Amino acid sequence: MDVSATFSNLCVVLISPRNPLNIGAAARAMLNFGFSKLRVVNPYEVAFREARSAIGAHEILQSAEEFPSVAEAVADCALVVGTTSLGHRGLEHTLHRLEEGAPLIRERLQAGPVALLFGSEKFGLGNEDMAHCHWLLRIATADEEHSMNLGQAVAVCLYELSRGTLDPPSKPQRAPKPAIAADTEQITRLLLDVLGKSGYVNPVTAASTETKVRRLVRRLDLSARDAPGVLGMLRQILWNLGGK
Amino acid sequence: MDVSATFSNLCVVLISPRNPLNIGAAARAMLNFGFSKLRVVNPYEVAFREARSAIGAHEILQSAEEFPSVAEAVADCALVVGTTSLGHRGLEHTLHRLEEGAPLIRERLQAGPVALLFGSEKFGLGNEDMAHCHWLLRIATADEEHSMNLGQAVAVCLYELSRGTLDPPSKPQRAPKPAIAADTEQITRLLLDVLGKSGYVNPVTAASTETKVRRLVRRLDLSARDAPGVLGMLRQILWNLGGK
Repeated sequence: MDVSATFSNLCVVLISPRNPLNIGAAARAMLNFGFSKLRVVNPYEVAFREARSAIGAHEILQSAEEFPSVAEAVADCALVVGTTSLGHRGLEHTLHRLEEGAPLIRERLQAGPVALLFGSEKFGLGNEDMAHCHWLLRIATADEEHSMNLGQAVAVCLYELSRGTLDPPSKPQRAPKPAIAADTEQITRLLLDVLGKSGYVNPVTAASTETKVRRLVRRLDLSARDAPGVLGMLRQILWNLGGK
Repeated sequence: MDVSATFSNLCVVLISPRNPLNIGAAARAMLNFGFSKLRVVNPYEVAFREARSAIGAHEILQSAEEFPSVAEAVADCALVVGTTSLGHRGLEHTLHRLEEGAPLIRERLQAGPVALLFGSEKFGLGNEDMAHCHWLLRIATADEEHSMNLGQAVAVCLYELSRGTLDPPSKPQRAPKPAIAADTEQITRLLLDVLGKSGYVNPVTAASTETKVRRLVRRLDLSARDAPGVLGMLRQILWNLGGK
């Protein structure tokens, strides 16, 4: 899937946002997760102007479009989805939990523009806004009394929409190469020598101690990279003990 | 799984946070997703005081603990995980993408305290902070140049940790009951009557039109709840057409 092509079909629509920090936060989350189309409906003018002059996510904010109504903001979208973190509304609508709804949106993004609506900080989406929605998306929260912060709700939704689709880190992480058995055994022998010279090993239980130490060293699961360092430490300790 | 019991084992650790809004946003996200233990290391004092006096997530902020060092903040934790939205660091560490790392953390939360570290707004986690971590968690983003906002990063991580474990809405959503075939057919007949009286139906292609309309009405996938309303509308239109 060409993520950038389909993600550009998502229109993030903020309805009557009042706080410039939230508008900026929404734009920053869009930048983080690879989305670009921001639309604002009837924003508090000062907030929109301030957000536009803020640093970060500059291009997204500069190209953000302003609309006087929800109908106009979603006119070119074949799917309109509203967001809510509360469960008690939406009885008129099909309500999908975010993790279930995201794949449905991703599929529709391949066909054309999809609008994702976020209500104002104070009231969320109103009934009139919801009437433009085909269905609602709900972020499952621990309680229904406390709604999410707008910028955080946008971030969580866009995270879930992009979840698993973004490229792995450009420098792929290699699992650490484990130390070979010869090195692990050499570490074991050196540690046993150190413990012996330190008076840790009771001659009566020496065989049992050796087994315990051997198992302990294996459980450490040393990497090939760390083995020389540990060997060096043990050699140095042993050298000092021997010199005493 | 008793989510509330294991979630109380997670310690969200903010290192040197400078912005009271971010501390408040972290606490709000914790409240949203059911986490409660907030720890701050070496915070900018004014920010911590201001955040504590802010509304929302009051209890979490009031009970937040302050520590002078990372070592002290994570002392009781058997697993320490650092977060980064950037991919180029962490070469010294195992790096898990958030969606892969979250199940590992959830598993360990069942055994005891786990620390999740977030670096400062400006610099993220430093090398010294990371040295306390068993592994690192990376939020996959669209590009590596732009880091995430602290409050949004906390929200996304806690969302993923709670993903799929939080209870469904208390009022479970019922799928809309579809209209029965008799109603759908009645709607079809009334619509055909309306179209006929309106001069829409060409007598030559009437049979074909009827089939098309019948299929169209089925594709609308009307609910049992909506069917009477549509029938009422069509009857009223037909009555008016008949009166002409």
